Amino acid sequence: MQHRIDGERLWARLLAMAQIGPIPGDGSCRLTLSDDDEAGRALLISWCAARGFALRRDAIGNLFFRRQGRDADALPVLVGSHLDTQPTGGRFDGVLGVLAGLEVLETLADLDLETERPVDLCVWTNEEGSRFQPAMMGSGVACGILPFEQALAACDAGGVRVADELVRHGYEREPVPDIGLADCYVELHIEQGPILENSGKTIGVVTGGQGIRWYEISLHGEETHAGPVPMALRKDPVPMLARLIDLVHDIGGRDPQARCTIGQVRALPGSINVVPGRIEMTVDLRHPDEIELEAMHHALMRGCSDLSRNYPAIRLDVAPRWHSPVVRFDANLANLVRSCAERLGFAAHDMVSGAGHDAFHLARRMPTVMIFVPCRDGISHNPREYASPQAVAAGADVLLSVVLDRAMSRG
Amino acid sequence: MQHRIDGERLWARLLAMAQIGPIPGDGSCRLTLSDDDEAGRALLISWCAARGFALRRDAIGNLFFRRQGRDADALPVLVGSHLDTQPTGGRFDGVLGVLAGLEVLETLADLDLETERPVDLCVWTNEEGSRFQPAMMGSGVACGILPFEQALAACDAGGVRVADELVRHGYEREPVPDIGLADCYVELHIEQGPILENSGKTIGVVTGGQGIRWYEISLHGEETHAGPVPMALRKDPVPMLARLIDLVHDIGGRDPQARCTIGQVRALPGSINVVPGRIEMTVDLRHPDEIELEAMHHALMRGCSDLSRNYPAIRLDVAPRWHSPVVRFDANLANLVRSCAERLGFAAHDMVSGAGHDAFHLARRMPTVMIFVPCRDGISHNPREYASPQAVAAGADVLLSVVLDRAMSRG
Repeated sequence: MQHRIDGERLWARLLAMAQIGPIPGDGSCRLTLSDDDEAGRALLISWCAARGFALRRDAIGNLFFRRQGRDADALPVLVGSHLDTQPTGGRFDGVLGVLAGLEVLETLADLDLETERPVDLCVWTNEEGSRFQPAMMGSGVACGILPFEQALAACDAGGVRVADELVRHGYEREPVPDIGLADCYVELHIEQGPILENSGKTIGVVTGGQGIRWYEISLHGEETHAGPVPMALRKDPVPMLARLIDLVHDIGGRDPQARCTIGQVRALPGSINVVPGRIEMTVDLRHPDEIELEAMHHALMRGCSDLSRNYPAIRLDVAPRWHSPVVRFDANLANLVRSCAERLGFAAHDMVSGAGHDAFHLARRMPTVMIFVPCRDGISHNPREYASPQAVAAGADVLLSVVLDRAMSRG
Repeated sequence: MQHRIDGERLWARLLAMAQIGPIPGDGSCRLTLSDDDEAGRALLISWCAARGFALRRDAIGNLFFRRQGRDADALPVLVGSHLDTQPTGGRFDGVLGVLAGLEVLETLADLDLETERPVDLCVWTNEEGSRFQPAMMGSGVACGILPFEQALAACDAGGVRVADELVRHGYEREPVPDIGLADCYVELHIEQGPILENSGKTIGVVTGGQGIRWYEISLHGEETHAGPVPMALRKDPVPMLARLIDLVHDIGGRDPQARCTIGQVRALPGSINVVPGRIEMTVDLRHPDEIELEAMHHALMRGCSDLSRNYPAIRLDVAPRWHSPVVRFDANLANLVRSCAERLGFAAHDMVSGAGHDAFHLARRMPTVMIFVPCRDGISHNPREYASPQAVAAGADVLLSVVLDRAMSRG
C-alpha cells in the first residue's frame, strides 16, 4: 500500500503562510531576514512545535526540524527548501518544499511509522537573492561553498548587512553552519516554467540544473540638459543600451535551451528633462550545458568590447558577479523519484531545472534530487504563481515515498 | 557712461548659494520646497532684507523683492529666475538669473539711481519639475496658464503634495498668485548648451524658445522567473524597449534642430533573476518650429502603434504629459538686449532656447526676453556646470542695461 499525505492540510498551510507579508493579487513579500520573513518562520516553528519536531538553528539563520528515527546515529534524510520570497513573489516558490517537508514529517507521525533514519526538514536562508546577494546563501554557507564571512558582509540596498539582521533576530548565538553528514537531500518545488504543463505530466524528475552566470553592466556617458545640446554632441548612453539589449537577446535567441534576462535597467539620475549620465543593468545567462554557457559568456564579453569600440564616448563596464556551474543530480535518486511517481500513478517527465535552487549546493555534499510539479502558465516570481491542490498533493506524495524509501533503509 | 554691476560680489554669492544643499563635485541639490530649497530662499531673503528690498510672497511660493521707483503706480520691470535645482544640479542654472537680478537691484541702490518704475526681483517656485510635475509651476500659476488647484495636487515620488509642503513652509496664508500688470520680464540664464561657447560669443540674444512635449510610456509584459521559461514563450518587454529607444532616437536624428531624450527608464520589479513585468520610461521631444514638433509627436505616436502591432504580447501605453508650445519673445526687447550688449562691447549671437524657462510663461502675459551667457562644454543639470566669472558679470551687466532702459522710461 502507498502512503499518502494530507492534501487539505498542506493546502490550508500554503494559504496560511501566504498571509504573512501579503501583497495584492494573492502574492507574498517576505524579503530575507525582514520582519515578515521571520514571522513566516515563526508560523512554521509553531506548527513543528505542536508536533514535537525538535528545532536546531545555525548562525546563518538556517532552520532544521527533526523527526527522530530508530537509530539516532544514522545519517538523516533531508527535505526542505526556503520561505523567503521575491519582492513580488508567489505562494508556492520555496514554500511548497518546506510545507510539503513538514507534511512528510507529520504524515509519518500520524501513521506512527518508525523510520530507521531521522528525517530533517531544512529551511535555507536567502534562497532568492533579492535583498542580499548571492542567492542560495544559507545552503551555500552550510555546504562550505560560500565563505561565511562573505555572506555576513552582504549588504541590502539600504546598507543593512546580513550580519546586522542575523544579530537582530538572535541567530548569532547559534553554531556555525555545516550540513555535516547526511544520507541524501530531496527538494520538492514548483517547476517555474511551462514544460510540465505543456507535456500534461504531473511529476518532473529533475536530473540536474542549468548553469547560471550573473553580470552587472554600467554605461557611463555625460549627464546634461535635455534641451540645448544637439543630439550629435551628446554623450547619451541610451542608444547604446538598445544595442546591448539586442546583444543579450541575440545570445539568448541562438539556442532554445539558452536563457538570457535583463532584470534590472535604470537610467540615472532619472529626470524627464535630463540626458542620463549613467545606465545600470544586470544580465542573467543560463544553459544546461556548461560548454554552451561558457560560449554565451564569451559572446557577451566580445559583444561588450565591440560595443565599446562603436561608442567611444560611452564607457561600458561589465562585471561578472556570480557563476553557478551546471549541476547533475544523483542518478539513483532520480530513478527512485521516477519509480515512486509510477507506483503512485503519476505521469513523470525527466527535465533540467532552469532556476537555481538550494539543492544545487547540497548536490556537492550528498546524493541530491529534486521533484517538480507544474505551475499554471509557467508563471513564477509573480503573485499570479499558482499550482493546483492536486499537483501540490501529488508532489508531496512522491516526496513522502522517496523519503520513506531512504529513511527505512539502514545506513 | 555704462553702469556696471559688481562682478566679485555676484560671484561670491553664487558660491555661497551653492553651499546650500551641496553635493559632490561642486553641485547643488535643492529640490522644490525641500528644506534645502527653503534654506536657499532664506539666504536670498537675508541679502535682500539687508538692502531694504521689500518682500512679497504668494500662495504657490513665488517670491517678489521690490526696489521702489519714483512712481509707485508705474508698471514694474521684472527680473528673476529660480533657486530650485535638479537632483544633481549645478551652481548656475536659475541661480544666476536670481542673483544677477539682486545684483541689478543692489547696483541701482549703490548708485543711488532713482528709476521711474519699480524693479521687482522674482523667484519662481519649481522651475525644474524634478520633484513635482509640471515644471515651471510657480510662473505657470502666476501667469494663469497652470490651474492653481492642479499645482497644489501634484505629488512627489513619496506621495507628498505641493499643497502639504506649501503649508509646512507657511505659504498658504499668502495671496493667490497673479503676476498682474508689469512692463516687461527679463531673465538672465546660462545657455545650457554649447552654441555660444562654440561661436566664441559672450551674450545670447534669445529670440524665443523650443516647443517641448513630454510623454510617459509604459510596457506591460509578464513577470516571471529568469530560468525556466524558454525565451520564445516569455512576455519580456525588454526587447521592445530597444525598439522604442531606436524609434525615439531616429526621430531625433532626422533634423539637427530636433532634440529627443529618454531621461527615465526603469524595469520593474527590478530583480536580477526576474524577467521584468513592466518598463516605465519618459520621452522629451523639442523643436524650435511648432509644425516640426507636431510632426515629431505624430512620428512617436505612429511608431508606438507600429510597435504595438509587432509585439502583440506586450501592451504599450503612451501618455502625453505636457506640451509647452514654441515661444517667440518680444522683438523690441530682443533689439534692446542686442544694442545693450553692443554698447557694453560684448559680442552677441541670436539664438533659440533649447531648455524651457519661466520666461516662456511670462511671455504670454507681457513683453519678455532672455539673455544667455555661455557655460563650459554646454554642460548643465550636472554638478560640473560652469560659467566663468567674466561671462556671469557680462550677462549681469547687459541685464542691468536692459532694466535701466525700461525702468527709466515713463509708462
